[in-house]
Amino acid sequence: MKILVLGGDGYLGWPTALHLSAAGHDVAVADNFARRGYDYEMGVDSLIPIEPLQTRVNTWYQLTGKRIGMYIGDLCDADFTYRTVGDFAPEAIVHYAEQRAAPYSMVDRKHAVYTQTNNVVGNLNVLYAIAEINPDIHLVKLGTMGEYGTPNIDIEEGWLEIQHKGRTDRVLFPKRPGSFYHLSKVHDSHNIEFACRIWGIRATDLNQGVVYGQQTPETAADDRLATRYDYDAVFGTMLNRFVIQSVIGLPLTVYGNGSQTRGLIDIRDTVRCIQLACENPAARGEFRVFNQMTQAMSVQQVAETIAAASPEAVTIEHVDNPRVELEDHYYNVVYTGLADLGLEAHLLSDTLIDSLFEITKRYAHRVRPEAMLPTIQWRKTSSIISN
Amino acid sequence: MKILVLGGDGYLGWPTALHLSAAGHDVAVADNFARRGYDYEMGVDSLIPIEPLQTRVNTWYQLTGKRIGMYIGDLCDADFTYRTVGDFAPEAIVHYAEQRAAPYSMVDRKHAVYTQTNNVVGNLNVLYAIAEINPDIHLVKLGTMGEYGTPNIDIEEGWLEIQHKGRTDRVLFPKRPGSFYHLSKVHDSHNIEFACRIWGIRATDLNQGVVYGQQTPETAADDRLATRYDYDAVFGTMLNRFVIQSVIGLPLTVYGNGSQTRGLIDIRDTVRCIQLACENPAARGEFRVFNQMTQAMSVQQVAETIAAASPEAVTIEHVDNPRVELEDHYYNVVYTGLADLGLEAHLLSDTLIDSLFEITKRYAHRVRPEAMLPTIQWRKTSSIISN
Repeated sequence: MKILVLGGDGYLGWPTALHLSAAGHDVAVADNFARRGYDYEMGVDSLIPIEPLQTRVNTWYQLTGKRIGMYIGDLCDADFTYRTVGDFAPEAIVHYAEQRAAPYSMVDRKHAVYTQTNNVVGNLNVLYAIAEINPDIHLVKLGTMGEYGTPNIDIEEGWLEIQHKGRTDRVLFPKRPGSFYHLSKVHDSHNIEFACRIWGIRATDLNQGVVYGQQTPETAADDRLATRYDYDAVFGTMLNRFVIQSVIGLPLTVYGNGSQTRGLIDIRDTVRCIQLACENPAARGEFRVFNQMTQAMSVQQVAETIAAASPEAVTIEHVDNPRVELEDHYYNVVYTGLADLGLEAHLLSDTLIDSLFEITKRYAHRVRPEAMLPTIQWRKTSSIISN
Repeated sequence: MKILVLGGDGYLGWPTALHLSAAGHDVAVADNFARRGYDYEMGVDSLIPIEPLQTRVNTWYQLTGKRIGMYIGDLCDADFTYRTVGDFAPEAIVHYAEQRAAPYSMVDRKHAVYTQTNNVVGNLNVLYAIAEINPDIHLVKLGTMGEYGTPNIDIEEGWLEIQHKGRTDRVLFPKRPGSFYHLSKVHDSHNIEFACRIWGIRATDLNQGVVYGQQTPETAADDRLATRYDYDAVFGTMLNRFVIQSVIGLPLTVYGNGSQTRGLIDIRDTVRCIQLACENPAARGEFRVFNQMTQAMSVQQVAETIAAASPEAVTIEHVDNPRVELEDHYYNVVYTGLADLGLEAHLLSDTLIDSLFEITKRYAHRVRPEAMLPTIQWRKTSSIISN
């Protein structure tokens, strides 16, 4: 298949592009390098050095003889979006190309407006490009489990069979997310469902849990193919951050009492989920939703798992929760759709954690420890982004 | 109370400002005249001539001795929004200042992106201005009944008590709207609920039905105080448009079989609802939702009501439905919240229709009949905006 990966230079976009290419698909990536730009703003960098996109693509070609196309530009620029979709003529578009950090969206008004504008407008442009250029293209859109929030009922896969006052309906699962970033993806989901309904396009919305891990078989083949690894309090997801804290001898910083529960997924399963979604497209007019996670753990459980696996003595420190979120809440998620398509999950294991310890140790000298302390307060309207 | 009416130059914003001023409140309006600008783009004009905002405000002062403050600018310009809120220091902000026509948002990609950006960013700026300047300000936000779509269950007021697999929760009512405009207000509602949750601000979201009528006691006091009356297929709401079609001897154009049912409200009840919401504010941290309508009728029933009341012989013509929407659907809406606060509804009556016939006859020579034919097709990604 011809598959276009939007945001193909990012933490997950790049490994996804390699995985799809390795699986025999004809892949192109599009990126505006916004993610690399946020690093300058925050004064941090990927723990593991990453090469320019051009070097990555050339390395992959040298190693495998497989070409990955490159489109450099911004999806909010509709001309770029239309030109890219028209030129590459994909059968599926994997859309990672959004600002993806909840804390970044909560810095202040400008960051909230940027996040929602960038994500919603970019996604609208993609929807229109598909509808106008080739409505048969399958949109595989990355959403987040955070769209749902933490309802007191089971979280179904996007839709909910509902009974109310003796009547029934199938409705979009009600969402109550926890940041302006998560809200931007709720907005996207509503816009995509509508586009499927009026134009008959096909879409899969993947509500992904917190991703951990850094290597896939493809990225591990050469240092120059490495994907980024974020440890800072803004873009670093919790498990990845805990690993680095343990390696450099800092306490693992758990927000609040740590009872907040999250869906998790191994990076190797992420790329496999995308492949499964692409190879088993939604029907025309269908808005299909999968919950892309393989297990649920509380933040405290994740910290304890890392602490137990660490070769060093590790302490866990509870810091004031900078977010506004429920602790001690109900959390039970249905996530059978991708398993039904063939996903065989890698559950969090000592092996994975060991390999993470190893690679983070190698680059531990690159850590700026103060960047791991949370500075962005949900209850405030304006925070300083970095220490 | 000090009340700031955003979009105070518009069809409902202006009568609301007058009504609140007449009721003894200290009122200011803000507007960027975007609505007047759309007229140039479409080559139409309000059926009933309207004066510049400055003339309106001066006339009101001459008649009543009451001052209405004026702020000219765009809410998407955060400096303007902050300056206005800071300078006027309102206790309540009534927010009408959004692009409000479903067909306009469906013209093409640019109009969809404009509508969502304008509405979502303007509203985000208002939320931040409230949170930063005075979180005690009560936001009274105009939403639309169209946010809900037409679910097969009763439509509650914004929230839904839900039972699922033996558990219960109170969730935001699931929404499945029918245009990029309606979606923009769904996005707003989600953003506002979140702002209430994290910053403890207070908000009332008013999901309003289709408004009909042109006069309130205040606007009727002087021709120079008239509010706009739109008859075109883009901004003209159905009942108002039917009245004009009957007056100028054209068939009433019903989309599809006309079984689509909508909530309706008299313009005199709109302004009263806003007053009630302002004078009975939501609690700090509360996201309160009312369904602002007083009766439900199908499009066919509305057309038949106008035809029966018309002194002329009137025919009803069914045209291909340019929208993608359900016909012959279930529609049962709860709208008790505003009645509980004291709303005494004006139901659609012969008296109201007679007065509409009268005033539209007076200006019938201003009608451009071809502007009443729908040109914007939901199933297409690009339409010509005007005949």
